[in-house]
Amino acid sequence: MLRRVRPDQHGPFDLEEGGCCIPDCQLAVATVVELTEAKDNAILVTTWYSGTHQIFRDIYIGPDHALNPNRYFIVCINQIGDGLSTATHNADGPNAELATSKFPKVRIGDDVVAQERLLREHFGIATLQLVVGASMGVQQTYEWAVRFPDKVRCAAPITSHDFLYTETLNEQIWSDPGWNGGEYKSNVDVLDGLTRHAHIWGVLGFSTEFWEQEVGRSLEFETKEAFLERFLEPDSTVMDPNDLLTLA
Amino acid sequence: MLRRVRPDQHGPFDLEEGGCCIPDCQLAVATVVELTEAKDNAILVTTWYSGTHQIFRDIYIGPDHALNPNRYFIVCINQIGDGLSTATHNADGPNAELATSKFPKVRIGDDVVAQERLLREHFGIATLQLVVGASMGVQQTYEWAVRFPDKVRCAAPITSHDFLYTETLNEQIWSDPGWNGGEYKSNVDVLDGLTRHAHIWGVLGFSTEFWEQEVGRSLEFETKEAFLERFLEPDSTVMDPNDLLTLA
Repeated sequence: MLRRVRPDQHGPFDLEEGGCCIPDCQLAVATVVELTEAKDNAILVTTWYSGTHQIFRDIYIGPDHALNPNRYFIVCINQIGDGLSTATHNADGPNAELATSKFPKVRIGDDVVAQERLLREHFGIATLQLVVGASMGVQQTYEWAVRFPDKVRCAAPITSHDFLYTETLNEQIWSDPGWNGGEYKSNVDVLDGLTRHAHIWGVLGFSTEFWEQEVGRSLEFETKEAFLERFLEPDSTVMDPNDLLTLA
Repeated sequence: MLRRVRPDQHGPFDLEEGGCCIPDCQLAVATVVELTEAKDNAILVTTWYSGTHQIFRDIYIGPDHALNPNRYFIVCINQIGDGLSTATHNADGPNAELATSKFPKVRIGDDVVAQERLLREHFGIATLQLVVGASMGVQQTYEWAVRFPDKVRCAAPITSHDFLYTETLNEQIWSDPGWNGGEYKSNVDVLDGLTRHAHIWGVLGFSTEFWEQEVGRSLEFETKEAFLERFLEPDSTVMDPNDLLTLA
C-alpha cells in the first residue's frame, strides 16, 4: 500500500541548510501488513539514489525473505525529491515556487528528520526494531543511528555510497547544454547527459562479480552492451534530471 | 635512459584494424642497466592508460624494489599514442597527416606487436624473463602471453582495466563542445571535459582503501577535495585529449 503522508501537519518543512523550506512536504510511504497495538514491531526501510521503495518491497519482503511481514510492520519511505515523494518535477500548488531549478538543497539529515516525524506523528511509532537501507539508504541508516540512537534497536547498512561518485553522476547532467541550468522543458533535453549518467552507473553501481559472472545473461541481456542499452540507459534517461540532482 | 626507437626500420607500421598505418612509428623506450651477452635477462614493463614509464622506473625498479636492475635488463616501452611515443599531438614530418583527429585506431595487439618487433630487431631479445604491467599494462601483459607464449617466461598482471570504465572517460572528452570532433586548438579548450575525466579517475582509479585510509594526507593533501583539485585535475587537464582517446 503506497500513500503520500505529510511528516509535518503543522506547516512547512524546514531544511537543515536553512534559508528556505518545503511548503507542503509529502513523503511516499509503502507499508506492509500490520502494526501491533503496542507499536513495537516496526522496521524502517530507506531508499537508494534513483531507487524507490519498490525493489525493496518486491525482493526483501516476504515470509521467506529477509524481512518477514508476518512478524514485522515494514515501512518503506521514499526520499524527499525522488519523484514519488515531493520533488522538483511534481512541485505544484503550495510548492509551485520550487519547480525546475528552484528546489532547495536537501540533506540526508532532512530525510531522517522527516521520517522520524512521520513515523511518530502519523503512526505513533517511538522505537524501530530495525532501520535498513542500501547505498544512499545506508547514509540514512547511519544518520538514524547517530541522530536517534534511543529509537533504533538494530541498524543494517547494506553496501555504501560515496560523495565523489555522486559528483561524477551530477556532472553528467550539469555538463549537458540541454540541462540549461535546470531550466529544461523535458528530460529528453538532457538525453546525452543522462545516457552518460547510465554508463557511469554501469561501471560503479554494479560489482565486479556482476560483470564477471555475466549476471546480465540471466536477465536476458546477451551482452554487456545490450545490458547498457536496453536496461541501464532507459533506466536513467526516463528520470528527471533535477530530481536526480536533489537526491545526490 | 629514454630514447625513441622505431619498431620497424623498414617502413610504415601497419595496424590491426587495417585501412591505414603509422608512416613513422617511434616508441619511447626507457632501459635500466645492462643486457647480458646472451640477451637472457630482459624484463618488459608495459604502461598504463595516461601513464608513462616514469612511475614504474621510479617506484618498482631498484636493488631493494620489485625489479632488481643488478640482475635484470629492464625495458619500459611507452604505448603508441601516449605522447612520448608517436601520438596525434606530436605527429609531424611523415606522420603529419595523422595530426589532431586523424590518428588511426590503435589496439592493444598493435602495441604488443610493435614491442615484440622492437625488442627483437633493436635489442636482439628473443625471450623475456617477465612481462609486467598494471591496469592497461595488464591488457598488454595478457596479450603478450597469448600472442607470444614461447617468448614469455613469466607474466605479472597487476590489477586490471576494463572497457566500460574507459568508455566513461572517453565520453567526458567527447561531450565537451570544446573538443570539437578532435579539432581543438589546445587541451585548454577541453578543460571541462578533462576535469570531469579527472573526477571519474578519482573514483575508479584508486582503491576504496586509498580513500578510507586517507593516503592523500601522507602526500600532503589535507582533504579529498584538495587531492582532486591539486593532484588529479592538473594531472588530467595537461593531457592531450586526442592522445587519451588513442590510448583508450
